[in-house]
Amino acid sequence: MIRAAVFGAAGYIGGELLRLLLGHPEVELTAAVSSRFPGKRLDSVHPNLRSATDLTFTTPERADDCDVVFLATPHRSTMDLVRHWADRTDLLIDLSGDFRLRDPDVYRRYYGVPHEAPELLDRFVPGIPELHRDRLRTARLISVPGCMANAAILALHPLAARQLALSPVLLDGRTGSSGSGASAGDSNLHAERSGALRVFAPTTHRHEAEVAQHTGLDARMTATGVEAVRGVQIVCHAEVPEGVEERAVRAAYREAYADEPFVRLVAHKRGTYRYPEPKILLGSNYCDIGHVWDGGARRLVVVAALDNLVKGGAGNAVQCLNVRMDRPESYGLSFPGLHPV
Amino acid sequence: MIRAAVFGAAGYIGGELLRLLLGHPEVELTAAVSSRFPGKRLDSVHPNLRSATDLTFTTPERADDCDVVFLATPHRSTMDLVRHWADRTDLLIDLSGDFRLRDPDVYRRYYGVPHEAPELLDRFVPGIPELHRDRLRTARLISVPGCMANAAILALHPLAARQLALSPVLLDGRTGSSGSGASAGDSNLHAERSGALRVFAPTTHRHEAEVAQHTGLDARMTATGVEAVRGVQIVCHAEVPEGVEERAVRAAYREAYADEPFVRLVAHKRGTYRYPEPKILLGSNYCDIGHVWDGGARRLVVVAALDNLVKGGAGNAVQCLNVRMDRPESYGLSFPGLHPV
Amino acid sequence: MIRAAVFGAAGYIGGELLRLLLGHPEVELTAAVSSRFPGKRLDSVHPNLRSATDLTFTTPERADDCDVVFLATPHRSTMDLVRHWADRTDLLIDLSGDFRLRDPDVYRRYYGVPHEAPELLDRFVPGIPELHRDRLRTARLISVPGCMANAAILALHPLAARQLALSPVLLDGRTGSSGSGASAGDSNLHAERSGALRVFAPTTHRHEAEVAQHTGLDARMTATGVEAVRGVQIVCHAEVPEGVEERAVRAAYREAYADEPFVRLVAHKRGTYRYPEPKILLGSNYCDIGHVWDGGARRLVVVAALDNLVKGGAGNAVQCLNVRMDRPESYGLSFPGLHPV
Amino acid sequence: MIRAAVFGAAGYIGGELLRLLLGHPEVELTAAVSSRFPGKRLDSVHPNLRSATDLTFTTPERADDCDVVFLATPHRSTMDLVRHWADRTDLLIDLSGDFRLRDPDVYRRYYGVPHEAPELLDRFVPGIPELHRDRLRTARLISVPGCMANAAILALHPLAARQLALSPVLLDGRTGSSGSGASAGDSNLHAERSGALRVFAPTTHRHEAEVAQHTGLDARMTATGVEAVRGVQIVCHAEVPEGVEERAVRAAYREAYADEPFVRLVAHKRGTYRYPEPKILLGSNYCDIGHVWDGGARRLVVVAALDNLVKGGAGNAVQCLNVRMDRPESYGLSFPGLHPV
Repeated sequence: MIRAAVFGAAGYIGGELLRLLLGHPEVELTAAVSSRFPGKRLDSVHPNLRSATDLTFTTPERADDCDVVFLATPHRSTMDLVRHWADRTDLLIDLSGDFRLRDPDVYRRYYGVPHEAPELLDRFVPGIPELHRDRLRTARLISVPGCMANAAILALHPLAARQLALSPVLLDGRTGSSGSGASAGDSNLHAERSGALRVFAPTTHRHEAEVAQHTGLDARMTATGVEAVRGVQIVCHAEVPEGVEERAVRAAYREAYADEPFVRLVAHKRGTYRYPEPKILLGSNYCDIGHVWDGGARRLVVVAALDNLVKGGAGNAVQCLNVRMDRPESYGLSFPGLHPV
Repeated sequence: MIRAAVFGAAGYIGGELLRLLLGHPEVELTAAVSSRFPGKRLDSVHPNLRSATDLTFTTPERADDCDVVFLATPHRSTMDLVRHWADRTDLLIDLSGDFRLRDPDVYRRYYGVPHEAPELLDRFVPGIPELHRDRLRTARLISVPGCMANAAILALHPLAARQLALSPVLLDGRTGSSGSGASAGDSNLHAERSGALRVFAPTTHRHEAEVAQHTGLDARMTATGVEAVRGVQIVCHAEVPEGVEERAVRAAYREAYADEPFVRLVAHKRGTYRYPEPKILLGSNYCDIGHVWDGGARRLVVVAALDNLVKGGAGNAVQCLNVRMDRPESYGLSFPGLHPV
Repeated sequence: MIRAAVFGAAGYIGGELLRLLLGHPEVELTAAVSSRFPGKRLDSVHPNLRSATDLTFTTPERADDCDVVFLATPHRSTMDLVRHWADRTDLLIDLSGDFRLRDPDVYRRYYGVPHEAPELLDRFVPGIPELHRDRLRTARLISVPGCMANAAILALHPLAARQLALSPVLLDGRTGSSGSGASAGDSNLHAERSGALRVFAPTTHRHEAEVAQHTGLDARMTATGVEAVRGVQIVCHAEVPEGVEERAVRAAYREAYADEPFVRLVAHKRGTYRYPEPKILLGSNYCDIGHVWDGGARRLVVVAALDNLVKGGAGNAVQCLNVRMDRPESYGLSFPGLHPV
Repeated sequence: MIRAAVFGAAGYIGGELLRLLLGHPEVELTAAVSSRFPGKRLDSVHPNLRSATDLTFTTPERADDCDVVFLATPHRSTMDLVRHWADRTDLLIDLSGDFRLRDPDVYRRYYGVPHEAPELLDRFVPGIPELHRDRLRTARLISVPGCMANAAILALHPLAARQLALSPVLLDGRTGSSGSGASAGDSNLHAERSGALRVFAPTTHRHEAEVAQHTGLDARMTATGVEAVRGVQIVCHAEVPEGVEERAVRAAYREAYADEPFVRLVAHKRGTYRYPEPKILLGSNYCDIGHVWDGGARRLVVVAALDNLVKGGAGNAVQCLNVRMDRPESYGLSFPGLHPV
């Protein structure tokens, strides 16, 4: 059994990690660390775990004796934790924003503060199995991408790898309210957030920097909060270089993802669910991707969807764990999603 | 013009008062008092007022020179305000819970604290035009009932007045999230409150005491938060005395409300909207009421619905103002609601 | 492997059966029968199955060679299917309403038509493991209860078994839109059904007959459609016989369900999720039950919640299958639900 | 009084016209024509009109004697109606798609069928008061734009008029379910449409042709159905010509809309509602517009929002009526919207 500890276990990403790890056939959850609720039962905060565990939140010490440390803690405060754990554990998987950007100057630009542990940045392997599976097999420090970033990177990577898209690429990101976390403020009160179509980041959302880093494309993201608790959808608008034909695009996606267990190509001519839609992905680890070719305009529209707490966070982290620990990648991640929902 | 001041103007009931008073043909809004946002524009908090007013929130002094003071402030803190204003204004309309219950012992039982101004309780006229129109015409102090209480009182009053229902009466109250106010806590975060069916008061909700007071019936309320921002629905289950026939019930409702401008009887055999439903009442001052006769069981099911911020609060208060000031009752209250919505 | 066929596989209950059976470690799905979509891929109707299966909908003949037949077909038309299959399969599990009521007269009263196969009624074992586990072990014909009925039966059974509740019992049922099925009409259009609080059955909902049959209590149900796709919640109001004390009630629930894998007792003094709430049960097979004692009034309020398509239908059917086939009861039913959601 | 007839009165746009016309101080509703519900009360279909009118739906003859005919009928079938009425009424206001595009070839391309009354196209004045107020004062035939088109045209017009945006312009349109109409099909069932993020038109949505026609810009629209009944939001991504500075953009918007009664400029640095959001516009006739300057990238993001049934349809039509009949433009359109909602 793999002994696992989760920091930030009372948050939404943390709670999703608890759910997935408790259902994982080869993981033992040894510590769920929360500074806000030490001693309280996990299910007092995450009621879906009511019959799954009798564990209580603990203080950090309990994490000492484990095989993998997950950090689902806020950015900035995570840097200290990483410094502490970097050489004290065989495997650290960070889900915060702190070690996603390789360049500390880019971090400062997007996060507004200087990076306090730049010496560690190079040691992290990006937690994107579809792009870095081999490096993940031996990684000691893994940084899982942001939820919208992951969807956009998976949507654009096949194009970027074969020079099938020109910069700039416009990214229209839509996200549910759970992305704001369990400590969100007044603007996330139900009466305010319900039914929202809230353009909260018309330009320069942090996740665009990750997309640029991983695809080499100049990505420009507009982000809107939509009426949903879970779910992210990204619509990418890309111009195609002259001479490129649709079959090249089609082939790029097919070849990139034919063997991927958690990426599905979804683009249908008929039916209700023709393009990727997050609601049927609730709780699942899939990222669905579909593209539309607008030949006359030499333009591609690519749609990607995922559950921000699963493939956009905790599920992706567990997939990385499985790769790293040489377990079947779908261990603990078999829930397919619901319909209708 | 009637000069009006609103205390608690940054809250949800307060904001609804602002909307209604700004649209009232014979009211001038002279002061919108908020301790949290003095100096800020009203529309910075209530964005629906963007083109309706350039006013800013003020401190209490600005209310001195007005004809009517509305208190949309939290219970307990309202007692001091009432003491201050009771003899300084010709008309005070209180929307808090502090002066709804005539008996200070009942107040203590339901609110958990002693009443601090019991000497003023008798001076208040209940803000229920359908029951107390004549007294309202000369009232100086008016206490508007709670949102669920108002729906239940209007649903049960015709039965109670003619001894057509036996105690106890079960009240199943369902309410949207705006009833928790603009300062609600973590359990009202969108991610927690969305899609809720939250039995937050299985027994002894405060509003049942108001229902008992106004109908003489032993009312027992169970309250559930439902997925909605606005809207209250009450389902009343009452046993009927032996010998009572349906036509007596039907007549009671018809005669009680035939001339009421804001009560509609809604009970249809066919169609999608057969019984009262709050969503088509958003923004309107109607209380819809419908009853179903279960003859075999000598049982009545009565359904009532309203918008908690309008007929359940601010709109009802404006209707009281119109009665008191001898204006047409529908002034400022003509919005009929939307369909679909 | 257990070979399973599903009739009505394009419906919502049918689709949920497909999801659960495809994820069951000892079931092979051999036929998904749909008269509307023969030849189409299952995932063209149920997009959550996209990577789970390449099967297509089939005509009935394909069901001939299987170990268990599930009927998720509309009431009335199911009678013919049952007649056909009753002696042609070792195990038939019916999820329609046709064989839930033992008494054909009660059927006629609640369904408005005469029962056409009354001779088969006695051969069915009710699909309620918590009440009939032993009989289910050898059953050949199983009839799974209605979604609201199951919640209410599980809520009331411990009381009924020990004479801790008096008739009549009021049942307030709330249900999401998926209960209306995949062929629902205009009143289920999103623009009409969204945000609904629709009292669609103020009295005499069909499920109350099942509750009466299984508990011996005179059950009276009022049913309301609420804003949700999945989920059922029942609030039961019961009077308690004189002399009964709360600890007897508490003991009744504890003893009835201590060893039940899919019933949880949920009633907390604090926290956001104090009583059973369906949203955290999406996709799970739990029925959560909590009671509140209103001692002064000798009254109990019992709240039950479940996912209507799982514990209220397909999941309950799979649990019955597991009991009957001597497999662990939780096989295929391990998904715990999500938070937040 | 202006005597008005509405065709297609049982639809969603038609129903909204009824609501607005019944509340208009100088309009008398003389005929509500519906082929589906002749003889039924208007409020049997539109329950929000319950106390507003006792009228019933009529056959077309009743429209003969009126001053204005509104057509809220499906495209294609509207052509015949227009042919019939074009010379029989002083004023015809068409809300269908049939006479929005001046060029019959463009119509054929976007609607897939030839135009059957091309000779009438030139006689229509576009129902956009902000662009064509003077022509509307004397118009006999008015064609109101599509809901998403109107939002996009108002968002882009100030830029287009001063050459402040380059082609192509990307338009990301988001729309609620009421845009699909009261006769929508299975994919609009609540259980399917709820929580949707449905990219139903990744490219070449019909409304983009209207935007191109009115702005001269090459508009490319992607349209997504979102969880809402009412509401449209458009996010426009435009490149700015070299040398253009932000203040020119700011001035363009200010000057274009300073005196417009129903366009508001909304772009704030702080607060929950910083950019246009449809939910606070429910029932109101406002179109809110806000822009964000991304100087480094010479790029503008412009956000527009409106209620698709009001400023995106019926309200806009009533505003045109007011202009044409020389009434104050806000007659019948004074509802400001709600908060919270």
